[in-house]
Amino acid sequence: MIQMTLIQIDNYGPWTVTPRPRTESDLQILQAELFADVQRQFATKKGLVFFTRFDNMLAVTNGINKEDHFRIQRSIMNRYPITISMGVGSAETPYEAQKKATEALQKAGGAQSEERREILAVDSLVSPENSFVQMAHIDINGVTESLTDIIPAFDTNFLVNKAQHYLMTKLIKKGALLFFIGGDNFMSPCNNLSTEDLTDILNELDEEIDIKFKAGVGRSDNAEDSAYLADLGLEIIREGKNKDLVSVLETDYLETL
Amino acid sequence: MIQMTLIQIDNYGPWTVTPRPRTESDLQILQAELFADVQRQFATKKGLVFFTRFDNMLAVTNGINKEDHFRIQRSIMNRYPITISMGVGSAETPYEAQKKATEALQKAGGAQSEERREILAVDSLVSPENSFVQMAHIDINGVTESLTDIIPAFDTNFLVNKAQHYLMTKLIKKGALLFFIGGDNFMSPCNNLSTEDLTDILNELDEEIDIKFKAGVGRSDNAEDSAYLADLGLEIIREGKNKDLVSVLETDYLETL
Amino acid sequence: MIQMTLIQIDNYGPWTVTPRPRTESDLQILQAELFADVQRQFATKKGLVFFTRFDNMLAVTNGINKEDHFRIQRSIMNRYPITISMGVGSAETPYEAQKKATEALQKAGGAQSEERREILAVDSLVSPENSFVQMAHIDINGVTESLTDIIPAFDTNFLVNKAQHYLMTKLIKKGALLFFIGGDNFMSPCNNLSTEDLTDILNELDEEIDIKFKAGVGRSDNAEDSAYLADLGLEIIREGKNKDLVSVLETDYLETL
Amino acid sequence: MIQMTLIQIDNYGPWTVTPRPRTESDLQILQAELFADVQRQFATKKGLVFFTRFDNMLAVTNGINKEDHFRIQRSIMNRYPITISMGVGSAETPYEAQKKATEALQKAGGAQSEERREILAVDSLVSPENSFVQMAHIDINGVTESLTDIIPAFDTNFLVNKAQHYLMTKLIKKGALLFFIGGDNFMSPCNNLSTEDLTDILNELDEEIDIKFKAGVGRSDNAEDSAYLADLGLEIIREGKNKDLVSVLETDYLETL
Repeated sequence: MIQMTLIQIDNYGPWTVTPRPRTESDLQILQAELFADVQRQFATKKGLVFFTRFDNMLAVTNGINKEDHFRIQRSIMNRYPITISMGVGSAETPYEAQKKATEALQKAGGAQSEERREILAVDSLVSPENSFVQMAHIDINGVTESLTDIIPAFDTNFLVNKAQHYLMTKLIKKGALLFFIGGDNFMSPCNNLSTEDLTDILNELDEEIDIKFKAGVGRSDNAEDSAYLADLGLEIIREGKNKDLVSVLETDYLETL
Repeated sequence: MIQMTLIQIDNYGPWTVTPRPRTESDLQILQAELFADVQRQFATKKGLVFFTRFDNMLAVTNGINKEDHFRIQRSIMNRYPITISMGVGSAETPYEAQKKATEALQKAGGAQSEERREILAVDSLVSPENSFVQMAHIDINGVTESLTDIIPAFDTNFLVNKAQHYLMTKLIKKGALLFFIGGDNFMSPCNNLSTEDLTDILNELDEEIDIKFKAGVGRSDNAEDSAYLADLGLEIIREGKNKDLVSVLETDYLETL
Repeated sequence: MIQMTLIQIDNYGPWTVTPRPRTESDLQILQAELFADVQRQFATKKGLVFFTRFDNMLAVTNGINKEDHFRIQRSIMNRYPITISMGVGSAETPYEAQKKATEALQKAGGAQSEERREILAVDSLVSPENSFVQMAHIDINGVTESLTDIIPAFDTNFLVNKAQHYLMTKLIKKGALLFFIGGDNFMSPCNNLSTEDLTDILNELDEEIDIKFKAGVGRSDNAEDSAYLADLGLEIIREGKNKDLVSVLETDYLETL
Repeated sequence: MIQMTLIQIDNYGPWTVTPRPRTESDLQILQAELFADVQRQFATKKGLVFFTRFDNMLAVTNGINKEDHFRIQRSIMNRYPITISMGVGSAETPYEAQKKATEALQKAGGAQSEERREILAVDSLVSPENSFVQMAHIDINGVTESLTDIIPAFDTNFLVNKAQHYLMTKLIKKGALLFFIGGDNFMSPCNNLSTEDLTDILNELDEEIDIKFKAGVGRSDNAEDSAYLADLGLEIIREGKNKDLVSVLETDYLETL
């Protein structure tokens, strides 16, 4: 079971234009620092946050309980001009987990409600014995050599965004999510996605949009370790030690390091 | 003429996995804080930075000279474990300007070169009398009401990413760029794009992918004021004072506030 | 027993002037952000860090184990141009605890050694059953009314610094520490200091340097709760509900809120 | 003439305990980040901010005009739960300049007034032709070797604080200010203080409290360059190239680097 948290800024849209539109650079800084801040706090307990839309962030939070969530909300309230609400849900697939998390929060009021403030709506938490997170770290082959150092920066950006869109389209059908994590890298919480299905998706995209991907997959009971194992799996392919498109590592691999 | 700066982390890819993959949450925090940091520094001189791919950021930098750029590089070198190189270019369209900025930097060495470090490659700067920035702030109609408060968070994210992909595809053909700035909002540096062409693009997307957009457009001699005018233009549509899809404001509108 | 951690930047002095002196504003930002950063990480586990000399920080860390410390070190190494070493000690008094923490780290090498890097030297950790933290939050009576709003800002600063110096001088003899926490506020980890002794010290300072203080004292098994109880104790005096100079609250007071 | 700015958080004391005391770690993070933030913004225009009491900060701001101050205030208002007011003054000595800055702000209302918010009270600005800043960077001889690596961390802290108190006491009589900048380092804005007077003060302290200091002094038309020249002056003594206690560098030294 994977546990996901939806982190939503309360009544953010109206705030950004009250009394008149706030300076765009300030909003960009506020959003980036808020993301960095909740990331650091969730990360001390082995969670991992994705910036998503910035005013709505999704996080994998196995092992992080209700009081932990509450303390993060309080910490943000004390240091920012805005507050955050959260919904928490758990399920067999990441898609279902974020769906439950969203629904729990939606029941408590709208994102632009003036009344809703600092809600912590927990649908369900994963117990230690059921905790399982599968993460795939997917990147595009040879971006620096074939794109960054050759074509204009925005064209590379366009291609990476295109890759994201098509990856998302395929993965969501399998109950997996996909988040851009910078450069040419994507992280996919993907419990229940088989190695065969992931390989098929990468092969299909090579044919359909002519972009070649590879992926490391990690499996453990928390987001941090699974992401790390996924990174290590990707390194194994980069070093040529695995000729497949997908390289999978289980949690006991950590003990061999 | 618009001036754009490409900000690139030196040799970042290899650094992230040396001696072994660094904790993903730390990389996410580093990237977000670096973005916030350069944003704050460019913003003190009315520039505006877009996070783009985080390891490669694009900025509109009219009015910001070579020494300003150098001071930002030095400041980052003193406080981060990585350094940044920059390319600067100016042209009639944003696409051409970032192309020149990229080429200037590419000539100085590869993004993953171990030798290249803290390069400041200036192709061209815009002079005060030629300085002109047109920005469009584009958003999706009714996202909170129709999506955020109703469907799962990731589905909204998927739709926003799809909107970005299709907007990018149309705008790039007109020499305009597009950046996601959070929520359901996009900012498009778009010198030379006519109101008619932008309106046509928004209408086409409504038909082709069934997503309804609106846009405020601002024009001035710097990124900050143009973005602010674009925000104000969008507010005018939101308030129903302009029934068109696109609302344009010139720099002299600022004096009426 | 109180547990204290000494956090020391490795080889910082030489780094600040290599190859030539680094911009002072950058160093100030680096130091402040490093302090904020370790604070946030220790705070997620109810610790409390004092900025002390910035390149050497002291923290009350009851309940925070070796792996927690290691994870904080790794997180700093991944995001800063410098690394940190730590010493951890526990004892009956804060003075003894920081002494043990310092000695543990000193044994591992000098602060300006080029070899010493990311040391975690643990002399002793407090077990949950022996964990006890007494904190006093001390402030100066009526600073805003009598100083901030009347005399020049630097004169107020001078007086607050003088108060700190004399408070430190008296408290250190009792095995208690004292840290400036902003405004006219000081926090004193002070296990083993009796209410009578603290009252005597405040009375003596009133006579000797003509500065009137008051103090809230909190007692619990961790830094966060004790500091909070100390804040509440101070509020009780401010509201006139306690006419003494010192107001003490035990951990069970938290349950009455 | 030196220009100084007093930066004061509006109504901060009451805010920290409303509705009940806020978590101490959050306040510490907020204060440190606010300091880092205004530092970065003033630093882009060659100013230098001292943390002072955190809720009241003093800055040397030669060359920074009214609009620059206003933009910093706006940027803080957009990203923090608190706002800041500022007073600006200029004079022959730093003491007089901060006195004027304080008085300008005090006239606009009290620090804990609920009405006063985002005031920018300018007594006087320094014109480019009259701009002059003298800075002394003072440190304690051999702190790492004789203290940090030998005695407990808090004892070193105590000694550094004592040094600060006695330095302040002497310097204020000469119209000079003194700020702790971390480690064993102090920065003193000291227009009008002669090299002889500074040398005398350091010699007196050696006799009176048995602490040996040395100082680099820099002179230019802005805070950044003067602080840098002061750093370089101190390096010259450290390297043994100047046997005096005080080493002075003028602005034209920068051209020789």
